[in-house]
Amino acid sequence: MFESAELGHCIDKKRYDAEVPVLREALLDVQYALAEQAHFPVILLVGGVDGAGKGEVVNLLNAWMDPRHIRVHALAEPTDEESSRPMMWRFWRALPPKGKIGVFFGSWYTHPMMQRMQGNIKGAELDQCIDEITSFERMITYEGGLIIKLWLHLSKKVQKKRLTKLAENPDTSWRVTDTDWQHLKLHDEFIKVAEHVLRETNTAEAPWIVIESSDFRFRNLTTGNYLLEAIRKRLATPSPLSPVGVPPLPPALDDKTLLSSLDFSLSLGKKPYQQQLAKYQGELNLLMRHAKFRNKSLIAVFEGLDSAGKGSAIRRISQALDARHYRIIPVAAPSDEELAQPYLWRFWRHVPGNGEFTIFDRSWYGRVLVERVDELCHEADWMRAYKEINDFEAQLIAHDTIIVKFWLAITREEQLKRFHAREEVGYKQFKITGDDWHNRDNWQQFDHAVCDMVDRTSTDIAPWTLVEANDKRFARIKLLKTLCERIEQALD
Amino acid sequence: MFESAELGHCIDKKRYDAEVPVLREALLDVQYALAEQAHFPVILLVGGVDGAGKGEVVNLLNAWMDPRHIRVHALAEPTDEESSRPMMWRFWRALPPKGKIGVFFGSWYTHPMMQRMQGNIKGAELDQCIDEITSFERMITYEGGLIIKLWLHLSKKVQKKRLTKLAENPDTSWRVTDTDWQHLKLHDEFIKVAEHVLRETNTAEAPWIVIESSDFRFRNLTTGNYLLEAIRKRLATPSPLSPVGVPPLPPALDDKTLLSSLDFSLSLGKKPYQQQLAKYQGELNLLMRHAKFRNKSLIAVFEGLDSAGKGSAIRRISQALDARHYRIIPVAAPSDEELAQPYLWRFWRHVPGNGEFTIFDRSWYGRVLVERVDELCHEADWMRAYKEINDFEAQLIAHDTIIVKFWLAITREEQLKRFHAREEVGYKQFKITGDDWHNRDNWQQFDHAVCDMVDRTSTDIAPWTLVEANDKRFARIKLLKTLCERIEQALD
Repeated sequence: MFESAELGHCIDKKRYDAEVPVLREALLDVQYALAEQAHFPVILLVGGVDGAGKGEVVNLLNAWMDPRHIRVHALAEPTDEESSRPMMWRFWRALPPKGKIGVFFGSWYTHPMMQRMQGNIKGAELDQCIDEITSFERMITYEGGLIIKLWLHLSKKVQKKRLTKLAENPDTSWRVTDTDWQHLKLHDEFIKVAEHVLRETNTAEAPWIVIESSDFRFRNLTTGNYLLEAIRKRLATPSPLSPVGVPPLPPALDDKTLLSSLDFSLSLGKKPYQQQLAKYQGELNLLMRHAKFRNKSLIAVFEGLDSAGKGSAIRRISQALDARHYRIIPVAAPSDEELAQPYLWRFWRHVPGNGEFTIFDRSWYGRVLVERVDELCHEADWMRAYKEINDFEAQLIAHDTIIVKFWLAITREEQLKRFHAREEVGYKQFKITGDDWHNRDNWQQFDHAVCDMVDRTSTDIAPWTLVEANDKRFARIKLLKTLCERIEQALD
Repeated sequence: MFESAELGHCIDKKRYDAEVPVLREALLDVQYALAEQAHFPVILLVGGVDGAGKGEVVNLLNAWMDPRHIRVHALAEPTDEESSRPMMWRFWRALPPKGKIGVFFGSWYTHPMMQRMQGNIKGAELDQCIDEITSFERMITYEGGLIIKLWLHLSKKVQKKRLTKLAENPDTSWRVTDTDWQHLKLHDEFIKVAEHVLRETNTAEAPWIVIESSDFRFRNLTTGNYLLEAIRKRLATPSPLSPVGVPPLPPALDDKTLLSSLDFSLSLGKKPYQQQLAKYQGELNLLMRHAKFRNKSLIAVFEGLDSAGKGSAIRRISQALDARHYRIIPVAAPSDEELAQPYLWRFWRHVPGNGEFTIFDRSWYGRVLVERVDELCHEADWMRAYKEINDFEAQLIAHDTIIVKFWLAITREEQLKRFHAREEVGYKQFKITGDDWHNRDNWQQFDHAVCDMVDRTSTDIAPWTLVEANDKRFARIKLLKTLCERIEQALD
């Protein structure tokens, strides 16, 4: 990867001084065009060897461009909040919105490479990180992001020369620390790991751009020019589309579906309901206060058609809990801020930390439900979402999150009855809107979308539970019972 | 993955008999449209559980469609020729050309899943196979292929019922073997592995389509209808494009390049040349007859601009060898047959088996050299090729192939001298054509393409050797010496 970056590239002062002002002006121009168009974010990774001047380059970009539209993330050791969540959480948090430039000085590559270099993880574990990273970068690209990965390189010889020169001069010798010499010794090992990682992540969507950094003028000018060209080119081309594969399977020929096969006559009397409600609420409360839960977190996803009883079921759960230990996230149409980000961003931001419980009243599954049915995104977009969602959940589970997913199923007749009942009761009228009737018209399409969703995202690590919800009492007890069982299993 | 495929879907005889003739006619229509348009191949995988009728479905498709445009590959145990090469070789060999349908009954999924089920490989090894498979399927999709992956499913209950029914009837009991009962016992384990693999390979480019197979009519009609729709849809849409990432780095600002930094004054006198030629030819001959080489294979890639001396250097190597042990593959413009396939296909077909040595006079690197410079493919196509090529070589190396890659470098002046010399000698005039002069005009672009190629594909497992070739004697000795060293290392 580094052959052309060890040739001793350099640029003389005269040329540098002449070209920099022109470049700065052009960079500002594309930056404003980017902000005005606001069609895509630029995600700039600045990586490379020690002493190559990563920090200087980041400072330079900040100086050359308008800092209002650029945001630098110098991510060092993770904070408490960050280590309490999956590795990628801190990067999701820091993603720039459309129209802005996010500079990552220390990126999702840093930690896995360091871990491997220090022998803390095996080659196979590194390869798994690489796999997660390429999936992540691919998704960001499909969502419209422009990912620019710069690698600032120095040969070992130049690195050594630089340190020796500083050490020999009494005025600068203080700048050379023991750590610097230690890092020099690790150069070969570092380069070996870096070569492997760069080669494996040198994808079509986000290839690496290696820049020799022995001469600061060459480095700065090459970096600036490249950034300019990459953004300019992307401004001039339409957004990349998701890859189009084969279509989904249409509804089954015999009209039989998972949902239509449920037994909607299941019900529970008032008395056993109250007994069991008390029982499972107590159990849930104890489980959430279990010592082992402090190193785990819990996500409960509630999905279901309008009036299926999500809200009232969630209340039966929250009643059992201490308000400090849970959060309910009601998911409606995305805000402007959320629309300027990849669709999973607004869910990543609410991922619970250790010891926390987050209840999603509707969730990321909207991508493959309402967004699919109402054609708010292309077929290719929601077709790729199944794997992206599975990957998202797998990352959470790898970080000891328990995920419990419920689909509250009601029949079409039951829904109509509930709609009419709501219209009749004054304080419930706000709960029924034109959207509800519109969604009801698309009953078949929702039914099909739900079955596809269950088929493609009910995994052994995060299975769906279908809840027969025509009878609210039956539904609530099944929910609570399942929730308790899943937590118990996970704590065992 | 299988929830909707355990509902007991079925279709009655009357409907089946009415719909099949219509479907068959429509299938023939799309098949002819596919053959006539000849823009893309259809790669149909038929997988699933035992007893679901994979074989019946394949037979049916053969019966329903025109067998001239369909080719079934029932790949069972690999042949000697196949096991002597990387796992994917047999599938590359079998890929259908544009306009045809290739049915894979037993696919690249079969072997890894079986191995995992039998406990012969670990989870991490399975995941590595999955990684190779998704890369492969992605490449095929970018190259225009339509991949349809069908999974025929039966619940354990239905599988058992089917066997019991056959066993109870004296007329059919002979059909139920011990193996069948054994497989039934393995159902749960099989499904567990299958769920994992299907979920991980349920990509945007090639998602799985699961079809319940307890009722043969439902299974057949669903399969036929799906195939029809998938091909129809693709016939009506333009070919998918490669994902567009950032542009490559332009030539270095100071015009210094890897090639221009070589020492072209290196030369060798006639006498030491003859001595060393004899020495290394002898060494090479011994190495190729070494007992350990029988389990290895060797690929030498020769690249270089016109008149760089590839042909004469190759002759110095072949002189040392027994004609039974090596093959020279001269690579020119692709044939019609090759053009109907992904670009790597014509190289996969020449991959050497154990104990064999293949010399490529030009190679797959044409994708990132002449095809890039002459704009024979899009930038996005050759940008993704670097990783595809690295993956290709990694597969070969994992199968104990030694890969040695040479770039024969000459200066622009030296080339001109050689061109003129060729024009003057009658029997060498055929060696100089308009193409040669055309390529010479693109000297700078080639120089840049070569440097990018070395930077992005010179890996620790398959490094490039740049050979200063202005002096032919020096070049030939460096080649032979490097070749011997690399083989020695690998045999150690």
